[in-house]
Amino acid sequence: MTYCVALKLDNSLIFMSDTRTNAGIDNISVVKKMFTWSEPGERVITLMTAGNLATTQAVVSLLDERSKAPKDRNPNLMHVPTLFQAARLVGDTLKEVVSTSASGGPTSNSPFGATLIMGGQIAGMAPRLFLIYPEGNFVEATDDTPFFQTGETKYGRPIILRAFDPSMSDAEAIRLLCVSFDSTLKANLSVGMPLDSHIYETGSLREGRMFRINDTDPAFSQISTQWGHSLRTALDSLPEYPVPAKTS
Amino acid sequence: MTYCVALKLDNSLIFMSDTRTNAGIDNISVVKKMFTWSEPGERVITLMTAGNLATTQAVVSLLDERSKAPKDRNPNLMHVPTLFQAARLVGDTLKEVVSTSASGGPTSNSPFGATLIMGGQIAGMAPRLFLIYPEGNFVEATDDTPFFQTGETKYGRPIILRAFDPSMSDAEAIRLLCVSFDSTLKANLSVGMPLDSHIYETGSLREGRMFRINDTDPAFSQISTQWGHSLRTALDSLPEYPVPAKTS
Repeated sequence: MTYCVALKLDNSLIFMSDTRTNAGIDNISVVKKMFTWSEPGERVITLMTAGNLATTQAVVSLLDERSKAPKDRNPNLMHVPTLFQAARLVGDTLKEVVSTSASGGPTSNSPFGATLIMGGQIAGMAPRLFLIYPEGNFVEATDDTPFFQTGETKYGRPIILRAFDPSMSDAEAIRLLCVSFDSTLKANLSVGMPLDSHIYETGSLREGRMFRINDTDPAFSQISTQWGHSLRTALDSLPEYPVPAKTS
Repeated sequence: MTYCVALKLDNSLIFMSDTRTNAGIDNISVVKKMFTWSEPGERVITLMTAGNLATTQAVVSLLDERSKAPKDRNPNLMHVPTLFQAARLVGDTLKEVVSTSASGGPTSNSPFGATLIMGGQIAGMAPRLFLIYPEGNFVEATDDTPFFQTGETKYGRPIILRAFDPSMSDAEAIRLLCVSFDSTLKANLSVGMPLDSHIYETGSLREGRMFRINDTDPAFSQISTQWGHSLRTALDSLPEYPVPAKTS
């Protein structure tokens, strides 16, 4: 499994992904799931991957190769005119990899699919955020739901639903994501530290602040511990449900 | 989907289940998923069902019929000597119903399976809680994890992991369950009000307080609203994550 979240704030795009990959519960590794392509002043595109690791690595390698190849190799991620075209390119690449793996040859019990989150900005245009399916099609984040999750989305979703606000600051958003990831890490062993993060500042058109949160990170630990206390305090301060008295 | 939770407290067993059943998103109904058999002073057994409705209704009907039939129809839920035997009886009945549905005849895309939570007490013995699988086998709640969830378990699990304590009062436990169900109701349309609840007081050997929480219940609404506020306040009071400054 995996857990990735992207938030579209008023002034930034924020990405966070875990780094655990597993082939069975007895075979786990640390793998980066967040990738950024940028040409300062012109475009920044960040991709987060969830799903079959062979598939996602192939997709990233293909996108990467094509973006570095001679200019005539079009379309490529560094030259598509819009983020919509970028999402289509990524979707087509994903579909191509999945189809190649799935057709002919030996079959596998584990699916070849992957789900990707792609966001960024191209000069002169607004920042955009897309969720790309294994079938190659995709949806875009809107003002009604300006965030996407992939992988093990459920444990960490209620707090995002309750507390996310596009006007929050970057630091507040990172704190919210720490809490959302903390709930997920506590509940699903296939989501694991460290966490990768990228804060892209809207309009900057260059890579933003990128950092990794390790399992020994004192700030993360403090947020996790204090969140546990705060939840219990919050629960204690709720009105009690008036349980009916026993009638018989 | 469904959401059911049973908690084993020091002095009680607490059961809560939603009541939504659906065959497709355009066909929903209210169905009770909590069933109690009791002989005052001798035994109380509560069952909560999740899964295929035809399967769970057949299981409950079979258990019910057999428990009301002449004494020689053994084993039956009202006469098995221990709760372990009761869990085995329920498991065997479930397995029998699933096998009958699944073998021969037309097949279906939706699985015939169901997962059940069974808890209660028989005179002279400790209260026990079991989770029963579609295959008919089962596990028992232990002191390390003295609760079970079935159905849409993930959204409502983090708060239980964080806040559940077997020494909490019945009212505190119901409040915790209200919060856990509230998160689930907000995230999954296939879990729906009203909620059924049963608080069995250990040692009482009679049906405990049973009540239904409707979607117009002012106490539940207040808990839900205040929980939203409390979460945001708790989040705001956490230390901020020290995001590294931009280096380039």
